[in-house]
Amino acid sequence: MLVSRLHLPTLREAPKDAEVVSHQYLVRGGYIRRVSAGIYSFLPLGVRVLEKVKTIIREEMNRAGAQEVFMPAMIPADLWQESGRWAKYGPELLRVKDRKQAEYCVGPTHEEVVVDLVRKDVRSYKELPVNLYQIQTKFRDEMRPRAGLMRGREFIMKDAYSFDSTVENAHISYRGMYEAYTRIFTRMGLDFRAVEADTGNIGGSMSHEFQVLADTGEDSIVSCDTCSFAANVEKAPLAAGKAYAFGPAAAAEILDTPGTKSIESLCKLLGCQPADTIKAILYMADGEPAVVFVRGDREANEVKVKQALGAQELYLADAEWFAKTTGLPPGYLGPVGLQGRVRAIGDGELPAMPHAVCGANEKQKHIKGVIPARDLQDLPIADLRMAIAGDPCPRCAGQLRAFRGIEVGHVFYLGQKYSKAMQATFLDENSQEMPFEMGCYGIGVSRILSAAIEQNHDARGIAWPVSLAPYEVTVIDLQQGQGVARSLHDELQTQGIDVLLDDRDERPGVKFNDADLMGFPVQVIVGKKAAEGIVEVKIRRTGQRLERPIAGLVSELAGLVRAGRQGKPIEVQ
Amino acid sequence: MLVSRLHLPTLREAPKDAEVVSHQYLVRGGYIRRVSAGIYSFLPLGVRVLEKVKTIIREEMNRAGAQEVFMPAMIPADLWQESGRWAKYGPELLRVKDRKQAEYCVGPTHEEVVVDLVRKDVRSYKELPVNLYQIQTKFRDEMRPRAGLMRGREFIMKDAYSFDSTVENAHISYRGMYEAYTRIFTRMGLDFRAVEADTGNIGGSMSHEFQVLADTGEDSIVSCDTCSFAANVEKAPLAAGKAYAFGPAAAAEILDTPGTKSIESLCKLLGCQPADTIKAILYMADGEPAVVFVRGDREANEVKVKQALGAQELYLADAEWFAKTTGLPPGYLGPVGLQGRVRAIGDGELPAMPHAVCGANEKQKHIKGVIPARDLQDLPIADLRMAIAGDPCPRCAGQLRAFRGIEVGHVFYLGQKYSKAMQATFLDENSQEMPFEMGCYGIGVSRILSAAIEQNHDARGIAWPVSLAPYEVTVIDLQQGQGVARSLHDELQTQGIDVLLDDRDERPGVKFNDADLMGFPVQVIVGKKAAEGIVEVKIRRTGQRLERPIAGLVSELAGLVRAGRQGKPIEVQ
Repeated sequence: MLVSRLHLPTLREAPKDAEVVSHQYLVRGGYIRRVSAGIYSFLPLGVRVLEKVKTIIREEMNRAGAQEVFMPAMIPADLWQESGRWAKYGPELLRVKDRKQAEYCVGPTHEEVVVDLVRKDVRSYKELPVNLYQIQTKFRDEMRPRAGLMRGREFIMKDAYSFDSTVENAHISYRGMYEAYTRIFTRMGLDFRAVEADTGNIGGSMSHEFQVLADTGEDSIVSCDTCSFAANVEKAPLAAGKAYAFGPAAAAEILDTPGTKSIESLCKLLGCQPADTIKAILYMADGEPAVVFVRGDREANEVKVKQALGAQELYLADAEWFAKTTGLPPGYLGPVGLQGRVRAIGDGELPAMPHAVCGANEKQKHIKGVIPARDLQDLPIADLRMAIAGDPCPRCAGQLRAFRGIEVGHVFYLGQKYSKAMQATFLDENSQEMPFEMGCYGIGVSRILSAAIEQNHDARGIAWPVSLAPYEVTVIDLQQGQGVARSLHDELQTQGIDVLLDDRDERPGVKFNDADLMGFPVQVIVGKKAAEGIVEVKIRRTGQRLERPIAGLVSELAGLVRAGRQGKPIEVQ
Repeated sequence: MLVSRLHLPTLREAPKDAEVVSHQYLVRGGYIRRVSAGIYSFLPLGVRVLEKVKTIIREEMNRAGAQEVFMPAMIPADLWQESGRWAKYGPELLRVKDRKQAEYCVGPTHEEVVVDLVRKDVRSYKELPVNLYQIQTKFRDEMRPRAGLMRGREFIMKDAYSFDSTVENAHISYRGMYEAYTRIFTRMGLDFRAVEADTGNIGGSMSHEFQVLADTGEDSIVSCDTCSFAANVEKAPLAAGKAYAFGPAAAAEILDTPGTKSIESLCKLLGCQPADTIKAILYMADGEPAVVFVRGDREANEVKVKQALGAQELYLADAEWFAKTTGLPPGYLGPVGLQGRVRAIGDGELPAMPHAVCGANEKQKHIKGVIPARDLQDLPIADLRMAIAGDPCPRCAGQLRAFRGIEVGHVFYLGQKYSKAMQATFLDENSQEMPFEMGCYGIGVSRILSAAIEQNHDARGIAWPVSLAPYEVTVIDLQQGQGVARSLHDELQTQGIDVLLDDRDERPGVKFNDADLMGFPVQVIVGKKAAEGIVEVKIRRTGQRLERPIAGLVSELAGLVRAGRQGKPIEVQ
């Protein structure tokens, strides 16, 4: 393809609303254009990347035995009423009335539609398993769409739904999807982790997120440096510390500590470390006050706190409301002697502390010399803290490392949640009506463009993995009209390589800048030495620049590109 | 692919709402399922046909220099307000408010979005032409969705939009799309006609419909048996008849014709033919009465009448209202002596009539012996009648033939309609701001499934053209487990043929019925003679059944299939 025939509008300036680098480069590189908040058009280059993403997904979904279907965007309300989600789903669900006042929603997800499809057509266990997927435009009316394709309102998703006869078979389907996803993101050339996203009560973890690692990711994840454990930090379980084996020691003593509502000010006054203190976090849990204690250098993990308290709704408490409700002084709360005054729980790390300073439950006072294993025996203990780098792995003797990630995929074991609600059943071996065992499996197709760029870019622009690049090779012609560049382009195209010839009558600098911005993995620069049979090859990702004889170049590049299509980064000697 | 691994739910009975054969077979054959009125899910077989349709369209659009983009389904109201369509478009436009009460529509067509895209990024005539297309799910809130995919509310469309610097260049773009469409429907193996759909005032016809011929089509079209003229019957121009060269003849005389409000009763009373009479059709045109006269055996064409009267709104008149408003007697109206009493026009065929009977504008009376060329010289004459088979071609000496058709594509020259309204301009050679010259080009992607079936079916089911078939060949194994069928399947697959092996443990009749219903072009039946190296080949479209040695069969079928992919019907000797 020739640049002169393409609609490739690159921009020097990013739009004002583009805060993250992927959003900036997608707009500047001519991949997308904004139509409305969280709603974009894809330009020709963007469509090419989307198609590459879709093709990889389709190939691996088909290989895993899933079958492509296409369900409607407009979903009648009655299906969502059956599942109960019409009432539960918040304002993110875009509800619509047609000309006859019939109610619909613009589908943000398709459990109801697919359950209806399968319950009408599948009668017997003999027809199972069935795994149906689609690639489709969805809509979620996000309050604050942002970061371009990262959190749009209209977005493209691959969603798959498996139907099985038993829990065991559902696990096999789940595992098949987990493996397909691993192949998909590997082929895309992305550095990713499959992290545990929830621990179901049946047979271990039944939800995994696929996270593309990137410093700018909005999710925090931890993974073990020894075993395969990896989890979203909010959901990473941590073992309780080993209780401190205390010997004879002085009793705790109350100190005057004026003006020390924060751990920082307390440490400054007493000359101790945050890890030597106990921090109180005040909550309103289902309308009632509750206090959570963690070591002073730790953060509470609200997902864990909510679960430990069995709360439906959990908010940080307003200090005044807390003081008024409990009679306790915020800023000076401690676990000693608190029993009966307010609901309190402590993190599993506390009993391992050899000594601690904590609030005395009196204004301007703390207690020093607290030995939690001795003094806090009445405090209920649970896993409440947020995992951080260096924490011990909950599965082995290894240590956790911390990353930031962008969620691009999610596999989820649903069980009978939807099939029961919607009375979707099959006849089992004993001719008994049984609800289907389900799983659902999503991939954020358009979001992958953002995630890939967040992970693969530099100050000049995008550096696409080969398998996602809109064009794998660009030939930059600096010798217009001499034919060398054109014949290289034609030969590469004959080899089945997606190649773009920059045939524009522009300065070399403009062509170099555009090629770097748009992010093609290999640049072949046809300059003055072309007459001697020499061109320059630049590898976008590594920045390598090498002179190469034209003879043999096409087959060398074809080899590199083929490896790149399997997810291997391009490197040359 | 093995049938046992596919979700292929065929049904014996068509749903009650399926009136047309394509709808019945799409549901019975396991291609689609209804979700709501005019809203369908595509099952795996349906998705495969859709993908074949999309691939052919993409290849030919790209070959024609068009570039694929992807615009959003949700379109902000302000763009439609700019073009003026927000107010004009009726209840077919599904209007939506988001959580912030901002107004959107679910896009039924994308002129506004693409104009906005191009006006922001294209500045100079040097960047033109640009032709952008997309394949996308659209929504039109039809009052009466019907016939399955034929007239759905949610449907898949390919829409393209060309932008040019001059009218001449716009015509070149238009011609390019016309030719691409011709290749597309030819490759699909469909019998179609490109018919004139409107005559613009610039350089001849600037709108063509692509009609798939089928007896069940909702459009009537005519085409010349000699030249390339073809048109939607509503828009086919007809030449005026040659005025009758009358000689001396008796004057017209008034007859008593009681109870002859209809042409039929009049002919019965007088013993004449409808072609000897003049029929009056009463209209309300923009609120005013008007009467149109055509030969008694003809129908008036409302598109032509509307244009001839210059009316915005045209309805058949209520007889009572007409009588009250004009004082004239419906059922007995004629063109003689009508001047000044009501607005009247006559069809171009009238002056050629040697004699005629018409109403006398008095109750129960007609006039006989009228010679229009003599007696109706004051009547304004225009082309008002509907074309029928046998009419002379308006372009040559040929005769028109009549067909019924299903519109699957439409190319349209838009000119500056949208670019002017939305101030979308570029700088021409003289650095003058000029509005873009536009064209738009649609293909009903999902409707093609219905149209192809309406044209290609029999009493047993669908007979897909090869290039649209979900599987090109099906191997029907009647000798389970002997391996012949499986190895044929594998060899055909290796040849790149889309092949489906019916490996189910079912009776032969069930397998034959399903294969015929689903409509695979070639069936290879592996029966008892397989042990002797003989199988049966059935060609779905012709019903031919031939015994063939297994040796050499794969390459023979591969040849047939490859020809079929170019649109050639499969036939064997």
